[in-house]
Amino acid sequence: MKIAIVNGPNLNLLGSRDPQIYGTQSFDSYLDSLRLKHPNVDFHYFQSNVEGELINFLQNCDADGIVLNGGGYTHTSVSLRDCISAITAPVVEVHISNIAGRESFRHESLLSPVCVGCVFGFGMKGYELAVNYFQNRD
Amino acid sequence: MKIAIVNGPNLNLLGSRDPQIYGTQSFDSYLDSLRLKHPNVDFHYFQSNVEGELINFLQNCDADGIVLNGGGYTHTSVSLRDCISAITAPVVEVHISNIAGRESFRHESLLSPVCVGCVFGFGMKGYELAVNYFQNRD
Amino acid sequence: MKIAIVNGPNLNLLGSRDPQIYGTQSFDSYLDSLRLKHPNVDFHYFQSNVEGELINFLQNCDADGIVLNGGGYTHTSVSLRDCISAITAPVVEVHISNIAGRESFRHESLLSPVCVGCVFGFGMKGYELAVNYFQNRD
Amino acid sequence: MKIAIVNGPNLNLLGSRDPQIYGTQSFDSYLDSLRLKHPNVDFHYFQSNVEGELINFLQNCDADGIVLNGGGYTHTSVSLRDCISAITAPVVEVHISNIAGRESFRHESLLSPVCVGCVFGFGMKGYELAVNYFQNRD
Amino acid sequence: MKIAIVNGPNLNLLGSRDPQIYGTQSFDSYLDSLRLKHPNVDFHYFQSNVEGELINFLQNCDADGIVLNGGGYTHTSVSLRDCISAITAPVVEVHISNIAGRESFRHESLLSPVCVGCVFGFGMKGYELAVNYFQNRD
Amino acid sequence: MKIAIVNGPNLNLLGSRDPQIYGTQSFDSYLDSLRLKHPNVDFHYFQSNVEGELINFLQNCDADGIVLNGGGYTHTSVSLRDCISAITAPVVEVHISNIAGRESFRHESLLSPVCVGCVFGFGMKGYELAVNYFQNRD
Amino acid sequence: MKIAIVNGPNLNLLGSRDPQIYGTQSFDSYLDSLRLKHPNVDFHYFQSNVEGELINFLQNCDADGIVLNGGGYTHTSVSLRDCISAITAPVVEVHISNIAGRESFRHESLLSPVCVGCVFGFGMKGYELAVNYFQNRD
Amino acid sequence: MKIAIVNGPNLNLLGSRDPQIYGTQSFDSYLDSLRLKHPNVDFHYFQSNVEGELINFLQNCDADGIVLNGGGYTHTSVSLRDCISAITAPVVEVHISNIAGRESFRHESLLSPVCVGCVFGFGMKGYELAVNYFQNRD
Amino acid sequence: MKIAIVNGPNLNLLGSRDPQIYGTQSFDSYLDSLRLKHPNVDFHYFQSNVEGELINFLQNCDADGIVLNGGGYTHTSVSLRDCISAITAPVVEVHISNIAGRESFRHESLLSPVCVGCVFGFGMKGYELAVNYFQNRD
Amino acid sequence: MKIAIVNGPNLNLLGSRDPQIYGTQSFDSYLDSLRLKHPNVDFHYFQSNVEGELINFLQNCDADGIVLNGGGYTHTSVSLRDCISAITAPVVEVHISNIAGRESFRHESLLSPVCVGCVFGFGMKGYELAVNYFQNRD
Amino acid sequence: MKIAIVNGPNLNLLGSRDPQIYGTQSFDSYLDSLRLKHPNVDFHYFQSNVEGELINFLQNCDADGIVLNGGGYTHTSVSLRDCISAITAPVVEVHISNIAGRESFRHESLLSPVCVGCVFGFGMKGYELAVNYFQNRD
Amino acid sequence: MKIAIVNGPNLNLLGSRDPQIYGTQSFDSYLDSLRLKHPNVDFHYFQSNVEGELINFLQNCDADGIVLNGGGYTHTSVSLRDCISAITAPVVEVHISNIAGRESFRHESLLSPVCVGCVFGFGMKGYELAVNYFQNRD
Repeated sequence: MKIAIVNGPNLNLLGSRDPQIYGTQSFDSYLDSLRLKHPNVDFHYFQSNVEGELINFLQNCDADGIVLNGGGYTHTSVSLRDCISAITAPVVEVHISNIAGRESFRHESLLSPVCVGCVFGFGMKGYELAVNYFQNRD
Repeated sequence: MKIAIVNGPNLNLLGSRDPQIYGTQSFDSYLDSLRLKHPNVDFHYFQSNVEGELINFLQNCDADGIVLNGGGYTHTSVSLRDCISAITAPVVEVHISNIAGRESFRHESLLSPVCVGCVFGFGMKGYELAVNYFQNRD
Repeated sequence: MKIAIVNGPNLNLLGSRDPQIYGTQSFDSYLDSLRLKHPNVDFHYFQSNVEGELINFLQNCDADGIVLNGGGYTHTSVSLRDCISAITAPVVEVHISNIAGRESFRHESLLSPVCVGCVFGFGMKGYELAVNYFQNRD
Repeated sequence: MKIAIVNGPNLNLLGSRDPQIYGTQSFDSYLDSLRLKHPNVDFHYFQSNVEGELINFLQNCDADGIVLNGGGYTHTSVSLRDCISAITAPVVEVHISNIAGRESFRHESLLSPVCVGCVFGFGMKGYELAVNYFQNRD
Repeated sequence: MKIAIVNGPNLNLLGSRDPQIYGTQSFDSYLDSLRLKHPNVDFHYFQSNVEGELINFLQNCDADGIVLNGGGYTHTSVSLRDCISAITAPVVEVHISNIAGRESFRHESLLSPVCVGCVFGFGMKGYELAVNYFQNRD
Repeated sequence: MKIAIVNGPNLNLLGSRDPQIYGTQSFDSYLDSLRLKHPNVDFHYFQSNVEGELINFLQNCDADGIVLNGGGYTHTSVSLRDCISAITAPVVEVHISNIAGRESFRHESLLSPVCVGCVFGFGMKGYELAVNYFQNRD
Repeated sequence: MKIAIVNGPNLNLLGSRDPQIYGTQSFDSYLDSLRLKHPNVDFHYFQSNVEGELINFLQNCDADGIVLNGGGYTHTSVSLRDCISAITAPVVEVHISNIAGRESFRHESLLSPVCVGCVFGFGMKGYELAVNYFQNRD
Repeated sequence: MKIAIVNGPNLNLLGSRDPQIYGTQSFDSYLDSLRLKHPNVDFHYFQSNVEGELINFLQNCDADGIVLNGGGYTHTSVSLRDCISAITAPVVEVHISNIAGRESFRHESLLSPVCVGCVFGFGMKGYELAVNYFQNRD
Repeated sequence: MKIAIVNGPNLNLLGSRDPQIYGTQSFDSYLDSLRLKHPNVDFHYFQSNVEGELINFLQNCDADGIVLNGGGYTHTSVSLRDCISAITAPVVEVHISNIAGRESFRHESLLSPVCVGCVFGFGMKGYELAVNYFQNRD
Repeated sequence: MKIAIVNGPNLNLLGSRDPQIYGTQSFDSYLDSLRLKHPNVDFHYFQSNVEGELINFLQNCDADGIVLNGGGYTHTSVSLRDCISAITAPVVEVHISNIAGRESFRHESLLSPVCVGCVFGFGMKGYELAVNYFQNRD
Repeated sequence: MKIAIVNGPNLNLLGSRDPQIYGTQSFDSYLDSLRLKHPNVDFHYFQSNVEGELINFLQNCDADGIVLNGGGYTHTSVSLRDCISAITAPVVEVHISNIAGRESFRHESLLSPVCVGCVFGFGMKGYELAVNYFQNRD
Repeated sequence: MKIAIVNGPNLNLLGSRDPQIYGTQSFDSYLDSLRLKHPNVDFHYFQSNVEGELINFLQNCDADGIVLNGGGYTHTSVSLRDCISAITAPVVEVHISNIAGRESFRHESLLSPVCVGCVFGFGMKGYELAVNYFQNRD
């Protein structure tokens, strides 16, 4: 099974940015542990700060499932939404923090309505919950 | 590990209500399969259509984790929110359907900001993802 | 033909509450006159101030038609709406006063979109108009 | 007893317009059946697509009761509302479809607050329910 | 003089819930001190987490004055408001915290417009201020 | 000097409609008194309940000044506004009642921004104040 | 091919009204040039300032395509929208000016959602673009 | 007859402030001309930039009528409104410019609903129209 | 104990202004009775119609507690709010009428969130309830 | 004549994405047909999913006219709007679907107010209508 | 060069009010240091808590530039805005704290649109930046 | 001292774009003058039209202070805001024009709340004021 994990803007800073919200672990080290726990999953990882590059990647992504954390574009990008809606691979939306409990402009996700499901607030563990979902789909 | 699963109004109708949204499986049969897959979890189940009875149960619930689907009270109950905020057991919010893609009055959950995390849109599988979370905490 | 009449909160006070809005007749005496005029209808009557008990009754109600006055829950209860939407018996919504001409929070009914039809403003006569509808359906 | 039935814009197309919403019966054929069932009622019928002509008719209408379906003017016409409020004959508002369940600009009726009562969503049967009301008044 | 004190949802948790907002005293111990200070007042106390049970109690409450803290229902319950408006005993609304300084959904009370007066933000002392009011009415 | 007085919908009912708001004098009798007091003004009077006929009249109106009471169209007619804006004769807007103190949908006039000036709330005397204005322009 | 061109209120003033927005050419002279350039099209032209007369014309219009400039009714007429939706001939919406760049109450067209397509801002040339569309449909 | 003319903030600058909106005449010179034209009126004039001083003056003003231009306080002062509502002398509201055609925060006047009538947009002539009104009252 | 009572605009008119809302007693006579009932309290009284003078007084007020009725400035004055927040003496907000039941612009108090507590709707008795609070603080 | 056609995000998927909305033809094949029909036009084509690359292209685009379909950036990009406003070549905005009839966040185009004109809802034919416009400009 | 520094309500409390927001330095001591650093500038200083006195000062202020911190009136005073707009001296708006990051009612400044420029969030240093601006203007 | 100046979309057009708003000087020539006046500052300059490239630069920018003009992204980019919030270098926000006085969608800056301070409306001089700030920080 091939799963793509796609991180949007500023998520390359995980571990250093706002540790009281996002924790102190870097995403690379988290990804390593994920690969160890799920050896039969073929993980592809992509991160970009450029909205259009995320769209480019998603359009060409050949995976059984996509785990997407759109970062700040979650709340502003009609284009990313259109892209998720246009591709055929199922997308699960993940956010590390509980966006419903933060600033009001983070409460609404433009991406949620076109995703298969949403996993919010579990810290980095949320990525694994999304992987669990893809592993148990049939 | 003791996990309480709490279902709000009309979720006793699962399997017969709006099957195009909620599927055809009853919650009882789903719960049986969950118990089979997680034999070391002590599941407690409670369902009520009465807002205050849900509050009563949560106040007295002695569990390591609570999986809550507030049903229609999700969008209207300040009292349920206050209760979640007042108790010490961690609560994960689950919705079977993807509420962000339905009527606008279902887009906002009053409960999300006081829950540990949210799992929306995965059908009944969402309950198991919440269980996965409690099993992998710390 | 079996018709259930369901009254929500505070409608047990009819005849004494705000008589300039709701009149001075009690609902019991009105129901008696309704039974006299429609001897071939089997009327079931239920009133509760508890939102969830109204849902319980509606879920288990075995009637050809339901006449529902949701009282104050009309404007706040997503759960009652979900219930009406989940059951198969047709529901007609009745309000004694003309809710469009009262306080703005009474202008919108969450229930109307899932009811068969609405009868507002005719005083207690509205219940009979709803009965008329069920008698002439085919 | 003299009852005026007044239909607003596009209701002359009933039977051909959007049959999935409005059905396939023409209003003329419905009116014939209504006259047959209520031989002691003197029905006057008026339809116009012109807002001001509807006002002209209502101002000069000498009836014991008026059944009004304002069509699209329901949601936009302060002038029609002022007219209903200025005349002395009681007006019952009828809509064939359940306007609360359609586009949001159809949810609010400017006319409801100045009508005696409202009958929404029963198809053409709604006109007869309004007639029932006038027959049982006093 | 007979005064009923009615507490809504989660107020049974006073003393343990959010002590930085609500303090550490239980309501029972506060009520004892109130009875000691006002021996000539006949206090009746009722608490429920169920909206409809609060309505049931208020409808049947035979008191010279009612002190009501509606808890979370304060902001959502048209039904509780209708009940206060329907009964004849005067109701004073109390909130322990200063609701105007908390989350925006707590700023508006649906109950205030139909209460005699409001006492917000004085901690448990607010209940006694309400009692003071009833003692000095004439 | 030639002045056109143009009255919109339902103003033909002045003297009988809502006398507590509009008084008991008919507009015809008021117009007679106005002609008597201003013998050197050539008054033209037009009233219609039809929005488009008001536009037709205004487009063809050959006057030194126009006094317009748009009635209910005041708050809804972009077309009437466009017409006032397109013609060259100056238009003064008059309302008999003080629209700012009535229902909220009467607070905003679409016509005001394209009129020379506004005279609201003086009863029928407002028409004469508008005439005074035209007489003193230079 | 038969094409109806329908102009709403105040468009009879083209050439004189607000020339900085609408230009100085009269619609008649434009229509002549259009007929010259498209000799094989049978053009029907209708203009009215009366909302209901526009509806009357559209209901009875027997054309292969309709080019409609609703003028001020564009932003206020649910009735015109219902008419377009009820008839079978395809309607293209044209506006001479770019309505998105003018007053905010002109930004939304109630008609657009039920038209085949929209052509805004090209001056009178917009009518010809609509004709081009009908000529190239197949 | 005694008439008080009360001008709010910045109106002491008339003649120099924004002449394209307010003209070039000072209020003093206008007032002189007004006194000449109306010798039998006893004019009192007061101007202040301080909201509370305007209230002080109005509370103590012994006049048959008051002409008030509240300037910028028109749109923000609940206190000035309360004052107008509390005193017994009738108040006519005047604005030199047509406030409905300016910035949106000038569209609503808090004062209008408690004034006898409103005169907007006639330049300084508006004050005289208000005087005309008081002279013709009976 | 030294308590300052501060009244905002128009409260000097108590006893004559809108007696159906504010009663017929003057504040001076009420203050006399208050002093009689609380001989051990050193009352300071200040009233002004000028927003800034209220701020001046509060900044220099040397009291154990302040009872403030901001009048119309309650709903508009960020500056008064900043002042309350800047000084150290505790402020209790009082309103004679129940502001939640009056015009919508009176529903929100800018001052409440920075006051110790609020007492609304008890008539002049509200001032004494605030005094009661200060006497029982410890 | 040189015309640039610029397509925004996801429009490279035309022919495969949501065919019920966008049809099954690829843009390349459409462009070929357009070139065939307009041999004297020098077409330049640019597509990008990156907002800033679209801006880069437009800033450097040396064309007599630009046909722009901004895709999802239409509704979110102030920067694209600023760019259109800054360059001198005229821009016509095209959308394949009728955006007024889709989700509410697609109803407003930030780009429309700075474009020469708009062509919405005609499928790919809309691009040719824009070309028609440029060919007939003078 | 003559520069007036004008401080609005509560800014006389700088150094004692909310030191976590405004710091601990008094404005007098800051002003002394400013005079020392800019010996060739003739500084005039004015502070008032009274809205109208600020207007009085600004109207009569004879300076080459004005540095204004409107305090709480920034967000509520149309009158202050009108004054800035009416006088000829250029005004720079300064706020000590970053108002965009505080309560929502502080986000909008009514004064900004009529000021030359804005300097927010630099603490007291903002006053000097404004002085820098005036020194480098030409 | 090392200061980075970062310009967002379309600011590479300064000197040619909308000169009535932005002036006629190119940014390069302005930067030259800035370097001349501040020889001891090490200026780094970066401009991009791509949102994500601005984020890339800011994440890697090693400067003592950053002067940022976000251009159109100011009002739409949650991602840019998150980036400013995540990095440690202090950021001063500059806008050439006074954004509060332009279109309403330019009134709110998403970036302001996470910047040290804001300098709006001083033309290009604003960049130097920001530099002044960094030079005087200690």
